[in-house]
Amino acid sequence: MRIGILGTGHVGQALASAWARAGHDVVIGSRRPGDPELLAKLEGLLAAGARIEDSAAAAAHAEVLVNATPGTASVALLRTIGAPALAGKVLLDVAVGFLADGTLSHPVVSLGEEIQRAFPETRVVKTFSTIDRGVMVAPDSLEGPSTVFLSGEDAEAKQVVHGLLADLGWPDDSVLDLGGIATARGQEHFADLFVAVARATGTYEFGIRVVLPAAGQGVAGG
Amino acid sequence: MRIGILGTGHVGQALASAWARAGHDVVIGSRRPGDPELLAKLEGLLAAGARIEDSAAAAAHAEVLVNATPGTASVALLRTIGAPALAGKVLLDVAVGFLADGTLSHPVVSLGEEIQRAFPETRVVKTFSTIDRGVMVAPDSLEGPSTVFLSGEDAEAKQVVHGLLADLGWPDDSVLDLGGIATARGQEHFADLFVAVARATGTYEFGIRVVLPAAGQGVAGG
Repeated sequence: MRIGILGTGHVGQALASAWARAGHDVVIGSRRPGDPELLAKLEGLLAAGARIEDSAAAAAHAEVLVNATPGTASVALLRTIGAPALAGKVLLDVAVGFLADGTLSHPVVSLGEEIQRAFPETRVVKTFSTIDRGVMVAPDSLEGPSTVFLSGEDAEAKQVVHGLLADLGWPDDSVLDLGGIATARGQEHFADLFVAVARATGTYEFGIRVVLPAAGQGVAGG
Repeated sequence: MRIGILGTGHVGQALASAWARAGHDVVIGSRRPGDPELLAKLEGLLAAGARIEDSAAAAAHAEVLVNATPGTASVALLRTIGAPALAGKVLLDVAVGFLADGTLSHPVVSLGEEIQRAFPETRVVKTFSTIDRGVMVAPDSLEGPSTVFLSGEDAEAKQVVHGLLADLGWPDDSVLDLGGIATARGQEHFADLFVAVARATGTYEFGIRVVLPAAGQGVAGG
């Protein structure tokens, strides 16, 4: 599959590397694709077969475009690529936006929804915003199974993303489809609990698992 | 222990009943403690040994006062009791506030922090706002262990609350102390993911478990 990745930070690098190793055709988009410092930083990725181009070229290449840019910058960057170039594409959005004081940039309506509204012809799927890069690409590095979530309006796009998660080692029963893109609020707003747990446990590399009622338990809900 | 419970909804009832059965001296506070309809609704609780009084009397009774009122009403209710009557007490705050449109009343600074700031002499401990009443009082009703969280400034108060969680069946290794009251943001803002998971799975009675790195995994964080 032709994957474009916007964002050259830790998350973008980890995903680019893992999907390139899984045999996908990966192009990383950067605002300065020829920068020697960037090329040095991404040396391992280039060795793994990924290429670096500008953001528009990465988007043009992509069947699935991954947004791994800072959540505060994502919409502006996508606007430079433009709605026509993004129409019909699956946008796998992993971003969360933080302000300088550590609070969320989208504490009510999510970034995922904002992107979907700004680019109505693009098929936005939110995932991975509840975990850090190490767990994204190595779910079996944890002491047991954890859960990842999908949010988006387009069932086929979610199926494509589900397949890309499977390529990273995520078993089917660890993937929970939450519903439409409005449920991206849940994934993004978990960030406050994520940060608190990371500080309390001393690691960013953890997951959460949804633990359902035991079989035969008829606990009333509400 | 003398426990006061503010809030006669499902959560307040479940906690009052469970702690009364565990042998605690429980008084439920209500704005209308003599209301026949309320007395009928709480019949089971009265049979379990809990009493119903007005909110000020429940607070006066309490070594630990539980806030199980709607999060949008909590601060105003506590103000009617007054800071002097609440000084020194442990306030076990389980509330989350929702607006009419389903969004959080405290999407940035948490209700727990607002209460602590309004009542600086009260020892606020946030817990249980990530799960529903059935799981609160029956953690072993799930298919496996899940995690509850503590947030608060006062270590001794958190220890008292930890003991009350143990009385409900929560094992020590399921209780994660997140740190100060600012970490209540994580517990409260999880509500958006809670609601999405509840809709996707068809039950409110689930938990989340923090899944840490497997022993020997040296995954880098950040």
